[in-house]
Amino acid sequence: MADIDSHLEIPPAGPQFDVTTGPIRGSRKIYVGPRRVAMREIVLEPTSGDAPVRVYDTSGPYTDSDAQIDIQSGLPLIRREWQIERGDIEAYDARMVRPEDNGQLGPDRSGGVAPFPKVVNRPFRAKAGGNISQMHYARQGVITPEMEYVAERENLGRERLAEYVRDGQDWGAQIPDFVTPEFVRDEVARGRAIIPSNVNHAEAEPMAIGRNFLVKINANIGNSAVASDVAQEVDKMVWSIRWGADTVMDLSTGRNIHDTREWIIRNSPVPIGTVPIYQALEKVGGIAEELSWEVFRDTLIEQAEQGVDYFTIHAGVRLPYIPMAAKRMTGIVSRGGSIMAKWCLSHHKESFLYEHFDEITEICKAYDIAYSLGDGLRPGSIADANDEAQFSELYTLGELTKRAWEQDVQVMIEGPGHVPMHKIKENMDKQLEACGEAPFYTLGPLVTDIAPGYDHITSGIGAGMIGWYGTAMLCYVTPKEHLGLPDRDDVKVGVVTYKLAAHAADLAKGHPAAQVRDDALSKSRFEFRWRDQFNLSLDPDTAEQYHDQTLPAEGARTAHFCSMCGPKFCSMKISQEVREFAAKQNQPSDDFIAAEDAQAGMEEMSRVYKEKGEKLYLPEEETADPAE
Amino acid sequence: MADIDSHLEIPPAGPQFDVTTGPIRGSRKIYVGPRRVAMREIVLEPTSGDAPVRVYDTSGPYTDSDAQIDIQSGLPLIRREWQIERGDIEAYDARMVRPEDNGQLGPDRSGGVAPFPKVVNRPFRAKAGGNISQMHYARQGVITPEMEYVAERENLGRERLAEYVRDGQDWGAQIPDFVTPEFVRDEVARGRAIIPSNVNHAEAEPMAIGRNFLVKINANIGNSAVASDVAQEVDKMVWSIRWGADTVMDLSTGRNIHDTREWIIRNSPVPIGTVPIYQALEKVGGIAEELSWEVFRDTLIEQAEQGVDYFTIHAGVRLPYIPMAAKRMTGIVSRGGSIMAKWCLSHHKESFLYEHFDEITEICKAYDIAYSLGDGLRPGSIADANDEAQFSELYTLGELTKRAWEQDVQVMIEGPGHVPMHKIKENMDKQLEACGEAPFYTLGPLVTDIAPGYDHITSGIGAGMIGWYGTAMLCYVTPKEHLGLPDRDDVKVGVVTYKLAAHAADLAKGHPAAQVRDDALSKSRFEFRWRDQFNLSLDPDTAEQYHDQTLPAEGARTAHFCSMCGPKFCSMKISQEVREFAAKQNQPSDDFIAAEDAQAGMEEMSRVYKEKGEKLYLPEEETADPAE
Repeated sequence: MADIDSHLEIPPAGPQFDVTTGPIRGSRKIYVGPRRVAMREIVLEPTSGDAPVRVYDTSGPYTDSDAQIDIQSGLPLIRREWQIERGDIEAYDARMVRPEDNGQLGPDRSGGVAPFPKVVNRPFRAKAGGNISQMHYARQGVITPEMEYVAERENLGRERLAEYVRDGQDWGAQIPDFVTPEFVRDEVARGRAIIPSNVNHAEAEPMAIGRNFLVKINANIGNSAVASDVAQEVDKMVWSIRWGADTVMDLSTGRNIHDTREWIIRNSPVPIGTVPIYQALEKVGGIAEELSWEVFRDTLIEQAEQGVDYFTIHAGVRLPYIPMAAKRMTGIVSRGGSIMAKWCLSHHKESFLYEHFDEITEICKAYDIAYSLGDGLRPGSIADANDEAQFSELYTLGELTKRAWEQDVQVMIEGPGHVPMHKIKENMDKQLEACGEAPFYTLGPLVTDIAPGYDHITSGIGAGMIGWYGTAMLCYVTPKEHLGLPDRDDVKVGVVTYKLAAHAADLAKGHPAAQVRDDALSKSRFEFRWRDQFNLSLDPDTAEQYHDQTLPAEGARTAHFCSMCGPKFCSMKISQEVREFAAKQNQPSDDFIAAEDAQAGMEEMSRVYKEKGEKLYLPEEETADPAE
Repeated sequence: MADIDSHLEIPPAGPQFDVTTGPIRGSRKIYVGPRRVAMREIVLEPTSGDAPVRVYDTSGPYTDSDAQIDIQSGLPLIRREWQIERGDIEAYDARMVRPEDNGQLGPDRSGGVAPFPKVVNRPFRAKAGGNISQMHYARQGVITPEMEYVAERENLGRERLAEYVRDGQDWGAQIPDFVTPEFVRDEVARGRAIIPSNVNHAEAEPMAIGRNFLVKINANIGNSAVASDVAQEVDKMVWSIRWGADTVMDLSTGRNIHDTREWIIRNSPVPIGTVPIYQALEKVGGIAEELSWEVFRDTLIEQAEQGVDYFTIHAGVRLPYIPMAAKRMTGIVSRGGSIMAKWCLSHHKESFLYEHFDEITEICKAYDIAYSLGDGLRPGSIADANDEAQFSELYTLGELTKRAWEQDVQVMIEGPGHVPMHKIKENMDKQLEACGEAPFYTLGPLVTDIAPGYDHITSGIGAGMIGWYGTAMLCYVTPKEHLGLPDRDDVKVGVVTYKLAAHAADLAKGHPAAQVRDDALSKSRFEFRWRDQFNLSLDPDTAEQYHDQTLPAEGARTAHFCSMCGPKFCSMKISQEVREFAAKQNQPSDDFIAAEDAQAGMEEMSRVYKEKGEKLYLPEEETADPAE
């Protein structure tokens, strides 16, 4: 494997980090335009005559051969200068970290992880009464550097693809031929896209989540009371963005939540999301009834100062909806949803998240944290899909979207869950209508319940479809879903599965920058450029490994055949002969199409073919000659 | 692993077979009704109070604890008596096996595999001029035992599911509430379903492929010039049907084709399909130009006598269509298609398959072999989807369908390939229209080209969708597609992936016997019946293994929590509390729904909850008590 593991020198007291660095094989990191937008270029074999293929890159400095990675210091603050230049933020003394932030660790911190060494004690926020959300700037007509970065990033050098004919069914999306900064601004202003960008996560490379941009994916990491530790979680973050995760959610529970999150955020070039109620619950000893607005608010501030880019808030789990879940096959399957349900039932009160929603919004606008309005009543089984509880909550999320927008705070909406194929589109349609086209962010959905161990696939089917219909970001599901905690391999399989689903959605929507990669890969396949085929794939390591299991010799990697048909008879090879044959007749391929006119040409071809035909089957040793 | 490997005693000279036998864990084999239709029942824990779940079973005697498996003898001839009773067949002296049938092995057969010991020298066929196809009987109004078997098999005890409300979008399919033998007969008579059943494969358990039946899947096996041997292929056949393959195609090339196929057919309880042109090509030394109708006809007879149930025939690759492939990104990717293209180009003649189609049909009707009309011009890349070459061939397949039906011969139609999501439905719609609702049998389709190593998933997305739209059988794709030959693990992953896609399609179509399994699994998940959850899944071994990676202790398999949230806080557990709470109030769940009326109940609930609330969090040791 070409992956280079960096064994970092760190102080003996700190956690041992071991993250994967170095380029993805066959690729090089490039920085494009005045904002130095990170991209990846896949360089093709010179014989192809084709330019490098530029692909969207989420991996941050970890895949840059020239970057110095130091987990103990964190990543460079690429957005800090832009933030300062706007002149609307102030540094202040941070809230003190308390024992309960890390699960009641005592003064000796036994059982705890080391705090991040360069922790920031003076975070930023908007000056009093200010609003530093990207939506606020957008609505004032301001194009921020973040928007410029996003525009460049989404284009992927799209101007080079001008010859591409748009082909797709976009279900009402409005994907432009070319993304301008003004387009990004307009989408953010309308609420159709968000750029999650907490002022205190200046390490993050700006990215957009919205129906008219490339479909994004999220990877969940996080320890739990049962397993995992901080070094593993940082490694999973770096590993998941290497393979394409656009955002990462830290869903840690149990002890060390605060410190784990700090290590993750300081080293993450992608936005980080959390579910603050998880930590709030830990602060009250796991007793849902003892949650309060005060504890929750304190947790929001704590996480805002660390730099969390979006908060999942289950404010749509309202008291009257909870009984609707009683008749369900699987009740309430969202952890956040069930925490709030328990609180509401116990106190017989409306949810404090709903009651204090505008105050949460005040916090979001002071740091530019985006809402990810949680679907606490999402269906947990096929039987419960699209039911009254689910859609009642969705309409409340629509109401809350509008309330957040009144304060210019960015919003996306979380969606299901478990939904059979014929009920998926209704989810998208209702969400667009109820939530004013705010970006949809769905978990799968899983299209059947009967395949635990394969739920990355049951959900990949639903994810591809709902992405096509208009979902802006797909939350990954790993093979361990419903069964256990994902390990490193599971994270990679989950990310690659969702990346292919998101790409399939882009293709089907007719995104103008999507098909170029499929075409490059298919062309390399047709021309037996095996290395290009591996390198252009979402997971070059696995592709090459699978190939080598059947044909391990180096020669086979350059052979003009593959193991499925063997050297003697290959359909790709014959097709090339058909084409070469046409070319030799000086007949351009396009003219070669009309069946009626083909007769004369065919006769000529038949004659020439017979003359030259003896050479069409090459002996095995010759097929391994790359010059052939 | 509970799988029991049977190490069979075989003569030292023969190949060493090692196939997996014994029940799938948690299941038992049952035989239902007068035709003794094989099914599988998943027995649930007594605490569930639920009846066993009956599922469709393709695995044959290999999963029957009472069966004696002897690969050297083959399976029992369960259909022989039915065939004899019809009085319309005759035994005759078989065509002699020739050296070229096995790739020019010399008299000492060095390099060859042992012939099947109990080879049949007197195969059956229709009496002179007769027609023994199931379609022929159906059109004469005859309900055969095969049709009765299919009806019982498809119902899965559906009468027990009468309470299920039909829910789905069937895109014009006509799935009955209950399958009667007369319904099967009518579907076969109309050509909307086929029952592949070569008279010489009396070992096969009858099954139907059609849009109004459960969606089926096919697994490809077969050696090639590069790897594999006969024992491996028999093992792959047994392994693939264990996990749910409804039919198996033997795509062997190279040497030993004849003998490999004999071992497979004699031991297969599912229909076997082939692509006869592969063997015909071997007979002429791999030189496509030297193929002839005579060699091809000889191959058909050879395979007919062995018992091949369906033939892939690429008769739609007509001379005028071949130039259409020249402008494609990836030309002709079907091996059969490219063989025929090469032949047509070389001779500048119309395809001999097309020219002699009615003679092929004569052979099919004498043995009851179904056509699988091959899509030799299927697209091999996203760029080539739904193009002129593909649809030109499809319309010819429609013409050939009608010609086959004139002789009452059963037909299904093969379909793509590589197709982006937005172009999938057009494939289904055009196929239904062009081919008079003959069953569609598709390979995937793959919805993007960029994920080699994950093409079981890229194609699983397309397979789920096209299955929903109406495809009757889905040809599996393994993770090795485009890269190498699948091994045993790949076969299993491919089969399970396609089984979940087919099931998702059944669910979305509203098949009345589909959702019962989802519901049983979700209920077991909700009630923390971990073993039931594993046993109800498509792959119990993997589900349990994944679970145990995080929580290996035996206690965790009966624990009322899982590793994702840990023992302390579990949403499923809270949901159960919500429901129990409702029950304690003597409020039926359904009455508990109307939000407006809930207020009074909620207040009472709040009071009682507080009284009893202390007990809602159970200490960890108590949660492991299954009686709790």
